[in-house]
Amino acid sequence: MTKISDFLFKGSTQLRVRYGETDQMGYCYYGNYAQYFEVGRVEALRSIGVSYKNLESQGVMLPVSEYSVKYFLPALYDDELTITTYVTKLEGARLYFDYEIHNESDKLLAKANTTLVFVKKSNMRPTSPPDSFKELLSKL
Amino acid sequence: MTKISDFLFKGSTQLRVRYGETDQMGYCYYGNYAQYFEVGRVEALRSIGVSYKNLESQGVMLPVSEYSVKYFLPALYDDELTITTYVTKLEGARLYFDYEIHNESDKLLAKANTTLVFVKKSNMRPTSPPDSFKELLSKL
Amino acid sequence: MTKISDFLFKGSTQLRVRYGETDQMGYCYYGNYAQYFEVGRVEALRSIGVSYKNLESQGVMLPVSEYSVKYFLPALYDDELTITTYVTKLEGARLYFDYEIHNESDKLLAKANTTLVFVKKSNMRPTSPPDSFKELLSKL
Amino acid sequence: MTKISDFLFKGSTQLRVRYGETDQMGYCYYGNYAQYFEVGRVEALRSIGVSYKNLESQGVMLPVSEYSVKYFLPALYDDELTITTYVTKLEGARLYFDYEIHNESDKLLAKANTTLVFVKKSNMRPTSPPDSFKELLSKL
Repeated sequence: MTKISDFLFKGSTQLRVRYGETDQMGYCYYGNYAQYFEVGRVEALRSIGVSYKNLESQGVMLPVSEYSVKYFLPALYDDELTITTYVTKLEGARLYFDYEIHNESDKLLAKANTTLVFVKKSNMRPTSPPDSFKELLSKL
Repeated sequence: MTKISDFLFKGSTQLRVRYGETDQMGYCYYGNYAQYFEVGRVEALRSIGVSYKNLESQGVMLPVSEYSVKYFLPALYDDELTITTYVTKLEGARLYFDYEIHNESDKLLAKANTTLVFVKKSNMRPTSPPDSFKELLSKL
Repeated sequence: MTKISDFLFKGSTQLRVRYGETDQMGYCYYGNYAQYFEVGRVEALRSIGVSYKNLESQGVMLPVSEYSVKYFLPALYDDELTITTYVTKLEGARLYFDYEIHNESDKLLAKANTTLVFVKKSNMRPTSPPDSFKELLSKL
Repeated sequence: MTKISDFLFKGSTQLRVRYGETDQMGYCYYGNYAQYFEVGRVEALRSIGVSYKNLESQGVMLPVSEYSVKYFLPALYDDELTITTYVTKLEGARLYFDYEIHNESDKLLAKANTTLVFVKKSNMRPTSPPDSFKELLSKL
């Protein structure tokens, strides 16, 4: 039997490295990639009709509980980056993402993964994802 | 009659320029000074017994409505900066701050001022400062 | 005689407020606008054929010497902002910019201006802008 | 034979969560911890007499090649955090760090590790650490 898919869905988005995101090494600072991955997952969710903003206004938040990244080549000022985001698994309250960042020459700059946890805003405790979200996933 | 004082109170605090705060020019990025001034005013308030954190938990916030800064000399990586904060005036809901940043050689790197507005968290509208704050100021 | 124009050229660009750019007030942090204005001016320059990245690789930098901003209404998470940038004046080594930020409902959120200085990378001293830049401006 | 030590040396430093480092969740944004770990390692190095700034001015840089973090409890605005940094291993050009962040109540908020690579500034290629650095380590 062959593996059909490694992920539930994926999305792709572009952004440019801002001047203030570089450091004196002339690289994009290693800490700024976390924002890029956040942009990546928000846009991936939007691409299947999920607004993270609306999730929060419905009383559910998605904080990050684990984050891991490998940097292969530096992202440089004004580089137009492509962030590819794979939503790989939903397991209880946990949602898993993989990411890749490529530059305009299609070089792989970084790979990362994060674990996010659905949390109820009212008590800050893990909760299962909204039914609407599970339905969306089931229809992909 | 001589002018006694240009400010209600002042405070002074130190911080070091972090690597991630530099840019590829080798300077501290111009946008990062806003955080330094925020640290400056929070510590100035703390020095007279006011916790900004507590203000917020009492339902009052202090967003910035105006901010102006002149950069004379660049702050560099690992520089230990001194932020001097002058609380210059309370006028209705508005609180005015002036700032200076010096480096270890006592060179003036930047001057700035901000206007902050006391805002009620519940309706996001301007409000007069808490009585406890006004009392503190009157005793200085 | 009527005034023909208040600016040399203008440009307009969009960006979304990132989650990491908000603060616990639920607003976009006041310090993050500086990056938005930087994006605004870089894209305005690009729109007339000037790459700030290339300027730097030719040995010329454009640090900010003055920056002033008024915040009228908060930018919120996921807001798609329009940054309008006006290049208002070139005077010696100084280049002046005005900015406006509007949200999707076309509300004016903030106005700002900055002064930037052409600086020679080799000695960090003010210098006149490259001839190619002056030519571009003269042809607008 | 018993294991004497899991690390070459460790250092500890304090910092306060800044307002601009929180997000609308009311937590310190997950991306900002990278700066805290950087402060941790720079101060750990300083504690054994190594100035990262001087390393760079001698033509050696230390970019991060891998970074991994687990978030257990949120860091909140104005929390005074203790960053404990363990330099665990030097292997060729690679230097390994572990980190822990505790708040004032001594709760463990986060654990992380990074791999950094000594790189020659002139050609951006991995290089062995300066002899002075290896000597310092050998004397610990």
